Amino acid sequence: MRTQVAIIGAGPAGLLLGQLLSRAGIDNIILERRSADYVLSRIRAGVLEQGMVDLLHEAGVGERLDHEGLVHDGFSLAFGGTLHRLDLKDLSGGRTVTVYGQTEVTRDLIEARQALGRPTVYEAENVALHDFDGAAPRLTFQENGEQQELHCDFIAGCDGYHGVSRASVPAGSLQTFERVYPFGWLGLLVDRPPAAHELVYANHERGFALCSMRSAERSRYYVQVPLEEKASNWSDDAFFDELRRRLPAEVAEAVITGPSLEKSIAPLRSFVAEPMRFGRLFLAGDAAHIVPPTGAKGLNLAASDVRYLFDAFREHYREGSNAGLDGYSARALARVWKAERFSWWMTNLLHRFPERDGFDQRIQQAEFDYLVHSRAAATAVAENYVGLPY
Amino acid sequence: MRTQVAIIGAGPAGLLLGQLLSRAGIDNIILERRSADYVLSRIRAGVLEQGMVDLLHEAGVGERLDHEGLVHDGFSLAFGGTLHRLDLKDLSGGRTVTVYGQTEVTRDLIEARQALGRPTVYEAENVALHDFDGAAPRLTFQENGEQQELHCDFIAGCDGYHGVSRASVPAGSLQTFERVYPFGWLGLLVDRPPAAHELVYANHERGFALCSMRSAERSRYYVQVPLEEKASNWSDDAFFDELRRRLPAEVAEAVITGPSLEKSIAPLRSFVAEPMRFGRLFLAGDAAHIVPPTGAKGLNLAASDVRYLFDAFREHYREGSNAGLDGYSARALARVWKAERFSWWMTNLLHRFPERDGFDQRIQQAEFDYLVHSRAAATAVAENYVGLPY
Repeated sequence: MRTQVAIIGAGPAGLLLGQLLSRAGIDNIILERRSADYVLSRIRAGVLEQGMVDLLHEAGVGERLDHEGLVHDGFSLAFGGTLHRLDLKDLSGGRTVTVYGQTEVTRDLIEARQALGRPTVYEAENVALHDFDGAAPRLTFQENGEQQELHCDFIAGCDGYHGVSRASVPAGSLQTFERVYPFGWLGLLVDRPPAAHELVYANHERGFALCSMRSAERSRYYVQVPLEEKASNWSDDAFFDELRRRLPAEVAEAVITGPSLEKSIAPLRSFVAEPMRFGRLFLAGDAAHIVPPTGAKGLNLAASDVRYLFDAFREHYREGSNAGLDGYSARALARVWKAERFSWWMTNLLHRFPERDGFDQRIQQAEFDYLVHSRAAATAVAENYVGLPY
Repeated sequence: MRTQVAIIGAGPAGLLLGQLLSRAGIDNIILERRSADYVLSRIRAGVLEQGMVDLLHEAGVGERLDHEGLVHDGFSLAFGGTLHRLDLKDLSGGRTVTVYGQTEVTRDLIEARQALGRPTVYEAENVALHDFDGAAPRLTFQENGEQQELHCDFIAGCDGYHGVSRASVPAGSLQTFERVYPFGWLGLLVDRPPAAHELVYANHERGFALCSMRSAERSRYYVQVPLEEKASNWSDDAFFDELRRRLPAEVAEAVITGPSLEKSIAPLRSFVAEPMRFGRLFLAGDAAHIVPPTGAKGLNLAASDVRYLFDAFREHYREGSNAGLDGYSARALARVWKAERFSWWMTNLLHRFPERDGFDQRIQQAEFDYLVHSRAAATAVAENYVGLPY
C-alpha cells in the first residue's frame, strides 16, 4: 500500500486532517487501533472556538453543527455565592464559542469520510512506525490478522497521549513538560436540560464544580474529587447533592436531576512534548500535548494543530515548498503554550488544592475580584476562552 | 498628654497621615522608636503611583517631587535576550509612575511637619498600647528615660512589619496570610546614571535582575540571590558582572559601574494581617501587609491605606460619622489583596524558583509571549503597575 499522508488515529484530529487533505486532493489513509463504535462512545469536550467552527466548515462538515450547535456569548464564574458573567462577545469584539459535543464532531467527520470513500482502517493492530527520519517512511500493522505495510510521504501522529506515534520517537529527541494536578473531575451526563443557558464554573470551599452541556436537552456536570476517588462510590443522588452544595443558590435550584447516562472520573494533567516534528513524522493534538479541561482547550488545540499541518501539507504538494512543514513545530507550539498557560491559570483559579494554604485562597479571591472590576483582565480571559488567533 | 490621633511610626505612612491630619486641623502626635537620621538612612522603594503623587500634593509636599521626580511612561521586561517595553501611559489611558526615592518622600514629610511645628517623639522607647478595645485608648512610652502617657481618641499603627502595633492585637483577633519566597534581592546603590531611562525587569536563566534608579544620577540595581547568600560575599565587580550576564546585551553594555554606596540583601515576602482595625487601633502600611518589591507596590499601598484612613478620620471629626472608620478595614483590604496578587504574579513571572521545573519556566515564557502580543494582557499589567483606582 502507498499513500501521501498516513494518519495514525481516527479521533477528531486525524479525521479532520484527513478530510481537509482529501478535499484538497491529497491522498491519505487513517489507521485506528480501536473500532468506530469505540471512538464514538468516548465522552469528551464540547466547547468549540470560532476558529475550529470555521475549520469544520472548511472541511465541509459544518451543516449539522450550524443546525444543532449552541452559540454561547458568555459564561459565568462563581466564587462562593457570587456569580459573575463574562460577556465573551462584547469583550472579544464579537467572537463566541459553540457548544457541540466532540462525539458529534467525530460522527460528522466519519460520515463525511465515508461519503468521500476514503479509507480508514479500524482495529489496526500493532501499528509500528519506520524510517520517518529518512525520505521514505512506512508503517506496518495487522488488519484482520494479516500483516500490512503502508508506504507514505509523511506520517501524521494524531493518536493521542497513549498512542504509538510519540512513543516511537527516540527518547533523546524529545523534551517533555508535565504537571499533574492533585485532583480529578467526576463527570455526570444526563438527558435533562442544563441548569443554566451558559456554562457556570464555580470555585467553592468544598471544591470546584462546573455546569456544562452537550445540547439544550443534555447536561454535563462535574465536581472536583480527590485523585483516589472512585466513580462507583457516587450514586446519582450523592453527585447532585454535592454539585448543588457548590453552586450559587440560583444555579443550584435550577439543576434538574435524572438518571446518569455516564459517570466517570478524569484526572487533570498539563503535558507538552517538544518538538512536534521529527523528520517526516508530525504530531498533532493529544499526541503532543494535554491540557486540563478547565479552559475547554484540548479539542480546540488539536484543531489548530491540524490547521497548521494541513496548510503545510498543501503548501508542500501544491507549491513544492517545505517552509510550512519546517515551521510547523514552532508555529504550533507557540499557540500550544499559550493555551497551556491559560488552562493552567484557569485550573489554578477555580480549584481547591489540598496542599495549598490560606494565602493561595485569598489570591484566588483577589483574582476573581480583579476580574469582576477590570475590563482589561476580563478581556484577557475572554480572548483566550474564545481562542487566540491561529 | 492628650491628642486626637496617636500615630506610631515616623516612616512615610505615619508622616503622611500626620501631615494630612494636621492640615485638616486634626491634632496628632507621632511616636518613633528610632532616630530621624536612622529613618532617613533606610534605602527603600522609589516608584510612586499617580495616586500617591496626588496624595503627596494634597499633603502639601509635592514641590520637590515635581521638580526632581522622574516621570516614567513605561518600563521594560526582558526574557532571555528579548526586551519588550510596556507603554504604561498608552495602555493605561495616560497614567504614569514617578521615580522618587522613599528617602526623599520621608525627608519632605519631616520638613513639612517641622514647618507646621507638629510633635514627633523620636527614640520613644517601650511604646505600649492600652485599652484600644474601649472608648479611651492610651499609649505609654519612655522619652529620654522618662515615663510618658499619651491619651488619644484613636491609634494609627504605622510602625511596619516588626512594629508594636500589630503585635499588641490579641492573637485570636488576627488572621495572617503569608508566602516566603526562596530567594532574596541583592541590591546595590551607585552614584552613576542608570543603564536605561526606564526600569528594566529581567528574567534570565541565572535568575532575576532589575535596573532601577533613584534619580538621573543615582542607579539602583538588583540581582536575585539564594536566601542564604551574604552581601559581604559580593564585591562591586562581582555584582556588576553578574548583573550584566542577566541583562539583554543593549542594556548590559549601558551599565555604568562605580563604587557602591550601599549593598544589602532583602528577603521577599507576601504577608497580610486581617482585619486592619481593632476597636480604636487602625493599622496602615507594612504594619498590616508586606509585598515582595517586584511590583513596586509596598510604599504605594501604605499611601492608599493612609488615603482611606485620613478620609475616615476627617469624616469622623468633621461630620461625626463613623462610616469611614467602620469600613476602613474592608476598603483597604480589597485594594491590598489586589496589589498582593499583582506583586505575587510579577514575582512568579520574573524569578527562577529553585524547586520549580521546566513546565513552570515554559509557563513563564508563555506568559511573556502572551503579554507581548495581547493588548488586553499588557493593559492589565499596566493598570496594576500605575496603580488601581483608590
